[in-house]
Amino acid sequence: MALNSFQTSGNSPGDRDARCHVGLLGFGTVGAVLARRLTGADPVPPLVLTHIYDRRARDKRARESAPLNNLTWVEHFDDLLASDTDVIVEALSAGEPAVDYVRAALLAGKSVVTASRQVMAHHGPALLTLAERQGRQLRYEAAAGGAMPIVRALGDGLAGDRVLKIDAILNGTTNAVLTRMESDGCTMEEAIADACARGYAEADPSIDLDGTDAAAKLSILCALAFGLRVRPDAIDTRSSKGVSIDDLRRARLRGGVIRQVAHAAFARPKGVLTAWVAPIFVPDASPLARAYGPQNAAVVTCQHAGEMSMAGQGAGGDAIAVAMIADLRAIARDRAAIVPAPVLVEPHEINGFSEQTFAEAV
Amino acid sequence: MALNSFQTSGNSPGDRDARCHVGLLGFGTVGAVLARRLTGADPVPPLVLTHIYDRRARDKRARESAPLNNLTWVEHFDDLLASDTDVIVEALSAGEPAVDYVRAALLAGKSVVTASRQVMAHHGPALLTLAERQGRQLRYEAAAGGAMPIVRALGDGLAGDRVLKIDAILNGTTNAVLTRMESDGCTMEEAIADACARGYAEADPSIDLDGTDAAAKLSILCALAFGLRVRPDAIDTRSSKGVSIDDLRRARLRGGVIRQVAHAAFARPKGVLTAWVAPIFVPDASPLARAYGPQNAAVVTCQHAGEMSMAGQGAGGDAIAVAMIADLRAIARDRAAIVPAPVLVEPHEINGFSEQTFAEAV
Repeated sequence: MALNSFQTSGNSPGDRDARCHVGLLGFGTVGAVLARRLTGADPVPPLVLTHIYDRRARDKRARESAPLNNLTWVEHFDDLLASDTDVIVEALSAGEPAVDYVRAALLAGKSVVTASRQVMAHHGPALLTLAERQGRQLRYEAAAGGAMPIVRALGDGLAGDRVLKIDAILNGTTNAVLTRMESDGCTMEEAIADACARGYAEADPSIDLDGTDAAAKLSILCALAFGLRVRPDAIDTRSSKGVSIDDLRRARLRGGVIRQVAHAAFARPKGVLTAWVAPIFVPDASPLARAYGPQNAAVVTCQHAGEMSMAGQGAGGDAIAVAMIADLRAIARDRAAIVPAPVLVEPHEINGFSEQTFAEAV
Repeated sequence: MALNSFQTSGNSPGDRDARCHVGLLGFGTVGAVLARRLTGADPVPPLVLTHIYDRRARDKRARESAPLNNLTWVEHFDDLLASDTDVIVEALSAGEPAVDYVRAALLAGKSVVTASRQVMAHHGPALLTLAERQGRQLRYEAAAGGAMPIVRALGDGLAGDRVLKIDAILNGTTNAVLTRMESDGCTMEEAIADACARGYAEADPSIDLDGTDAAAKLSILCALAFGLRVRPDAIDTRSSKGVSIDDLRRARLRGGVIRQVAHAAFARPKGVLTAWVAPIFVPDASPLARAYGPQNAAVVTCQHAGEMSMAGQGAGGDAIAVAMIADLRAIARDRAAIVPAPVLVEPHEINGFSEQTFAEAV
């Protein structure tokens, strides 16, 4: 592994400077927070936001003031590709062809930071392989746990152990709704309205409540923790829509709460994965019971070091922006690093939810 | 930041292969666990342990069987330096000149993983600068939180935020002693004996109980979280030796526990750091109250994403080995990366313990 400093400098002879030029893809809730942080009073060197792509760039730019409206705003993605940006931050709203844009950016020789769990859950392995081949990076901390750095914890911090089991709250919106009902005794409809008002939920939070969003995130974590390629729709999901105030009261009497938990356990010898997302009773003693509002939380059980737990903000523009800026800084720092794509295999068998696996779970 | 794949390959033209040859410094408790994991039934590619240095290599090797005793054991550090190892893992027992060995290894063009909080707390900034200049890496996850990946969380995962405050349990030995007294109502002497029996404590755990160890770790975290250079002996420490069973009973009646907490808060505008290590009352609601046995735990308060908390095994050879193997894998992966050394400044003022700062703390 001998290197000389030239090879590791990461700068081609004519390299511009040490700054990292960032192009933003999508000026929605998250994109706006990100843009304001990168151009605000407390900047994040060496990151320099230079371009913003948005389908309605003209209108949106008109509503912004300096320094934001002085950046280069483009309505055509190709103009962003052709720019001198080093890294593209993908913060597109649902319905836009995020995966095509991410692929095109990597092919154009740019590193990418994405917040899209759908892109990473469905296309992550292929895109990470493309990034490695291109000598660029694709980072996605925001796609799994928001400001809770679970992607780093599983992919890096616990790389010295063997993960046996993950139990996590991966959808901040659902957690905000359930804990609001818990604390206020309000109906789910009222709790959803409140979450929308606070910017934690879309008008229709179905993909949050029914577990689709958490399942996509869980499939991302299965790749990191177990080296498994798991299609999100292969993960058994039970909706949280039916959870009532009475259910929460009964849980309280049992000494616990109800949380939307994403569970994954891998029996390596047999190649059997058990994975599900469901609203379940969680005893007060579990770290998962202490995640309130839009928080995410995770308990990772490992072979050598036992349990590692973490918790942090899982929803809201500020939390997502924190994770994305952390990824941008890592790319700017490790500019010369090639991050090998994971080698994933299919589980031989995938089991769904059962009270019994849950009993083991918490 | 344009690169071509040759520059980023991280391999010099005649590079041997993709394996990362590891040399172990010190075959004590941690070193032995590390060596067994790297040579055991569940190896960790691309890591290959080839050399072991220990002052008593001959005796220790004689007590080992294959494959361990087939490795190259050396009693002279220079023999390890002269070897073809890519990375040196420093797991020396106290009293050995760890910092000299780490510096010499970096100067010899090897990357280094260390578990020594003393080395990093006192010499970290200089050694990290040397590593950057050498185009090598110096990683130290094990030096701060054991298997709780707090170094990554602060240095990387939360790099997109601004850390305002850290409250943490950083000494697994003291936590094991205090929680044992709590659960068994035994004396501190009995709890210490138990911790020794379980391999969580030295015969004389003074530097654990009096806060010296936690203060060294806190100074490492202050560099990561605040960009501050803080001498460990500048951190106010209160010993936990005086904690009695009655204190614990009183805490229970108040609805909490007593933990050795390391606290650091930085008022940026004024450049004032408040930092201390002390046994304090922690209400049951705090994540710190739920760290039992040799666990570490941390609550990091940030400007943008609020609170992030984590917990994991903080003491014991298995936990330390997990953190060190994670660092080894990161070095093997990021072989071509130059990790810039942090630019640290001195705080203008350092305040110590006060009930008032603690009231804010938990």
